Amino acid sequence: MTNTPHHIVRSFDEELRGLSEIIVRMGGMAEAQLAAAIDALVKRDADMAARVVQQDAAIDALEERLDHDAIRLLALRQPLADDLREVIAALKISSDLERIGDYAANVAKRAIAICQTPPIEPVRAIPRMGRLVQAIIKDTLDAYVARDADRAIDVWHRDEEVDEMYTALFRELLTYMMEDPRNITAGTHLLFIAKNIERIGDHATNIAETIHYLVTGRRLEGGRPKGDTSSFEVVRPAPQGGAPEGNDKA
Amino acid sequence: MTNTPHHIVRSFDEELRGLSEIIVRMGGMAEAQLAAAIDALVKRDADMAARVVQQDAAIDALEERLDHDAIRLLALRQPLADDLREVIAALKISSDLERIGDYAANVAKRAIAICQTPPIEPVRAIPRMGRLVQAIIKDTLDAYVARDADRAIDVWHRDEEVDEMYTALFRELLTYMMEDPRNITAGTHLLFIAKNIERIGDHATNIAETIHYLVTGRRLEGGRPKGDTSSFEVVRPAPQGGAPEGNDKA
Repeated sequence: MTNTPHHIVRSFDEELRGLSEIIVRMGGMAEAQLAAAIDALVKRDADMAARVVQQDAAIDALEERLDHDAIRLLALRQPLADDLREVIAALKISSDLERIGDYAANVAKRAIAICQTPPIEPVRAIPRMGRLVQAIIKDTLDAYVARDADRAIDVWHRDEEVDEMYTALFRELLTYMMEDPRNITAGTHLLFIAKNIERIGDHATNIAETIHYLVTGRRLEGGRPKGDTSSFEVVRPAPQGGAPEGNDKA
Repeated sequence: MTNTPHHIVRSFDEELRGLSEIIVRMGGMAEAQLAAAIDALVKRDADMAARVVQQDAAIDALEERLDHDAIRLLALRQPLADDLREVIAALKISSDLERIGDYAANVAKRAIAICQTPPIEPVRAIPRMGRLVQAIIKDTLDAYVARDADRAIDVWHRDEEVDEMYTALFRELLTYMMEDPRNITAGTHLLFIAKNIERIGDHATNIAETIHYLVTGRRLEGGRPKGDTSSFEVVRPAPQGGAPEGNDKA
């Protein structure tokens, strides 16, 4: 673009900056939606949860706009190298943020169902998991704004904590459900809520990988850190009122 | 590209065709992985399930290759209009197919856990749901190969059936889990398996939307058909050995 008149170059930069701004707005909204959904769950506030479900459309609309702007920019500006990576990264990140919004909305939907069931103890573990994932989303967005690959790698490693929390909660919830069938509906929705939050962590990890690619032009090497082993979990009901047995004893 | 020498044009078309070929291969693999995972679940074959988990890496590798080729093509060829849409569509579709592969692998992981628990009746509903989703993936790939927007819209509507099947199975599984705590571990994994298959249907719907955009240049208008209401489900244990109560009675 070196031979292009200056005002065109500036306008191109402005268009690229426009994509970044949409990403940052989407990220802030996704973070707020997750916080509100968990708040509604803990406070058993079905109205607040319903508002979260409704507000998801705003994130979807921003993703549509970003898609539109990015494809237009590719067609009209035909960006190269760093600029091309900016556009591709924006497309990928907005798709992850849209999914994060969907998962937050699903947490809120399930909070509405849980409001109609007796309160159960393990709800208390959700906000802790939620705070960790919110911090990860926030750090991911900071890494994006700063175009900081090191901070992105840092985020990438923290997803493991989320997975471990999820696996522990999975076992705890199955135990609760085995103790009393009245816990099964709420327990099941909490399992899916915890899974949604774990998936949000995965999407933040995707975004961290995209930031690394955006900044360095290279894919992150090596397998992604993985701590969610819950898919392999087998928990058995206690034979005589004792503690249920897990994989380690089976 | 009208003024470009003929051999360059052909080579560019070949590169575009290369992207399509990767998509078709990924789609075939994702379909086969889902079929094998469900087969392993029904036959309680942990070895077959383990092979499905292992083979997921091949789909991931193809997505990486497509990403690489597509970005290279954008940078070197700077495609316009229809050709640009081909590249963008390939990027989006491969990302959906990679996710479908992940969900199939997760079905297989959970099949391994279920092999260690007593057999439960509702497993029988999974292959029916699986066959429907496999047919949807197949039709989606056919619509992609034929660049047929009408067939894509047809697929888009059939996702509703999957969602309805999933919601019915969700209720059935909760009832089973309430009847006997020994069903809870297998029941929970089956809930997630059914959810994974439902999510695969969602990704096929995403692909159908992308095909519509690829062929017509326009986004599909109107809200996506939605039948999965399971997030709002409340099922209560039977008070005296009768049938559990659902939303309709609550």
